[in-house]
Amino acid sequence: MTQHEVRVDRESLQAFTREVFVRVGMPPEDAETEAEVLVWANLRGVDSHGVLRIPWYVELVNRGEMNPTPNIEVLKETPATLFIEADRAFGPVVTNFAMRRVMEKASGIGVGWALIRNLTHQGAMAYYTLMAAKNDMAGIALVCSPPNMAPHGARAAGVHNSPISIAVPAMHRQPLVLDMATSVAAGGKLRLAVDKGIPIPAGWALDKDGNSTTDANLAEILMPAGGPKGSGLALMFECLSSIMAGNPLVAPVLTDKEKGDRHHQNSVVAAIDIGAFTDVAGYKAHIDNVIDAIKALPTAEGFDEVFVPGEPENRCYADRSRHGIPLPEGTVRNLRDVAERFEVELPAGL
Amino acid sequence: MTQHEVRVDRESLQAFTREVFVRVGMPPEDAETEAEVLVWANLRGVDSHGVLRIPWYVELVNRGEMNPTPNIEVLKETPATLFIEADRAFGPVVTNFAMRRVMEKASGIGVGWALIRNLTHQGAMAYYTLMAAKNDMAGIALVCSPPNMAPHGARAAGVHNSPISIAVPAMHRQPLVLDMATSVAAGGKLRLAVDKGIPIPAGWALDKDGNSTTDANLAEILMPAGGPKGSGLALMFECLSSIMAGNPLVAPVLTDKEKGDRHHQNSVVAAIDIGAFTDVAGYKAHIDNVIDAIKALPTAEGFDEVFVPGEPENRCYADRSRHGIPLPEGTVRNLRDVAERFEVELPAGL
Repeated sequence: MTQHEVRVDRESLQAFTREVFVRVGMPPEDAETEAEVLVWANLRGVDSHGVLRIPWYVELVNRGEMNPTPNIEVLKETPATLFIEADRAFGPVVTNFAMRRVMEKASGIGVGWALIRNLTHQGAMAYYTLMAAKNDMAGIALVCSPPNMAPHGARAAGVHNSPISIAVPAMHRQPLVLDMATSVAAGGKLRLAVDKGIPIPAGWALDKDGNSTTDANLAEILMPAGGPKGSGLALMFECLSSIMAGNPLVAPVLTDKEKGDRHHQNSVVAAIDIGAFTDVAGYKAHIDNVIDAIKALPTAEGFDEVFVPGEPENRCYADRSRHGIPLPEGTVRNLRDVAERFEVELPAGL
Repeated sequence: MTQHEVRVDRESLQAFTREVFVRVGMPPEDAETEAEVLVWANLRGVDSHGVLRIPWYVELVNRGEMNPTPNIEVLKETPATLFIEADRAFGPVVTNFAMRRVMEKASGIGVGWALIRNLTHQGAMAYYTLMAAKNDMAGIALVCSPPNMAPHGARAAGVHNSPISIAVPAMHRQPLVLDMATSVAAGGKLRLAVDKGIPIPAGWALDKDGNSTTDANLAEILMPAGGPKGSGLALMFECLSSIMAGNPLVAPVLTDKEKGDRHHQNSVVAAIDIGAFTDVAGYKAHIDNVIDAIKALPTAEGFDEVFVPGEPENRCYADRSRHGIPLPEGTVRNLRDVAERFEVELPAGL
């Protein structure tokens, strides 16, 4: 059964989203940032990190796990580093702040490295690394949350499927931007499969007892990409973010000192100033060259085109900016509930 | 047919290696560093990055691609960053220098980020990131060489299977250290399969025409780990190292402006001072905790134990330190040739 999909335009979806977050208590400027990051993900086709998260965020605010009015504090600082206590801030609010600050540091001293403690869901990480790319810098971001992925060789969750994003600027091409979970498939893709009522491929996930499953509703434990590689990266990201922030998220859950269902995360965002090493115009021209060279390679069987990181999302962005963002029925239903509850007008067409 | 293996003790293998590199023209101190890094890899069971490389290095010196007496120069520097021209130095020589310098920077300002241009094979990258871990820092290292791996969707080489290493210190446990290529299998494992005369698993590599192969002798193009993930990481590492160093290694080869068989690479090494963010003793205790928690997880079918990054190598190190380093016949034969050529005494037992 093909499900009916509604298309909604970016502006009205963003206005709706902003208004919902104002109603849950965010200052309008922060609500705008949150709405921008979520709808940006939808525009790029990363629906798993878009407006489908709204009901979950609302619930987290109600449970006291997301803080619409946080006291964001810089705890430690050097000319190159920054350690921020986020006070359970919405991820986009504090991550925007952190990326702006590390870019200032990088423009002075070549590199800026920030650690954000105790924040909440950040949306699509590419948003932040692209902030750096737009300023002639390389952007790097890592995130860790409580365990949801099986370490290689285990049949239970023991690491988070921590994403990494890296972005760099090009000259005439769009920036290269990688944004990947360390699991075979991102958790949001499981949610999307649930919303769409479709099975997931074998190898994506285990059920709660550690058995392989293709039923998205039973999938509880993600599998690492590349076995020990995805698993190892995820653990090292926990060491660089959560444990470095004095806020470990893996061991306390595995040893039962803490319930794993509380949402919180820690994050690294960093910027490297290209000009501290090489000529910026030359750099960007070289990025164009490498993109052109890779796209000219002969394709493997089953592929029509070789894509570089961020390219499929850029195409989707262009299409959805013109033709609107398609939302599946499950998401529409959830947004209608939210609209009713907060007495917010739905975007046109919903 | 089981091949005969000779065991040789660490000291005499290292003395032999040092002497060979002195004969090719390296200063004794640099030859010592080179020998230490190679034999260390053998001790850890990473034979693909150990003394089997000696004949190749000798050949590269003869071709003028590795420089035993480089003029290593710091081209640019800030209190947090370092840009080094390696002048085709042996990787261990310049990478040791770079890691020592970024640790100095990190101890002052929280982070040190170095870019090394135009160096040669570095051996096992974990050696350098562990230098940071031993100094209560996190170490990070990336490397890029000319293309040897197919980007996701391509049937030709278009990126290098760039490795990444990350290490952090523990309290009572040994440091956690990840050292992984972005390909399904490291190139050294293909060489080893050739030396052992065994086939490789499907999915590891393509032949020169872009067809999948299980014949190690025909394997020319590596496949990326996790499809677009390994492929994307590799490309972004090229952007953070080679292109940032103004020495791109992918596009010039793909567009035929340069032959891909010249050996050279670029590298990032970075250190992050744990004390710039959190209490160091607490950090190390947390690392112990996360190791213990992960090792206590129930194992998946077919696994006896869950390993953390670096653990299998640590076990091998303990065993080989006591019982000697086993060398396959092919390697022994090659070392005998080298010994004869340079009139260097072979290690005891060879």
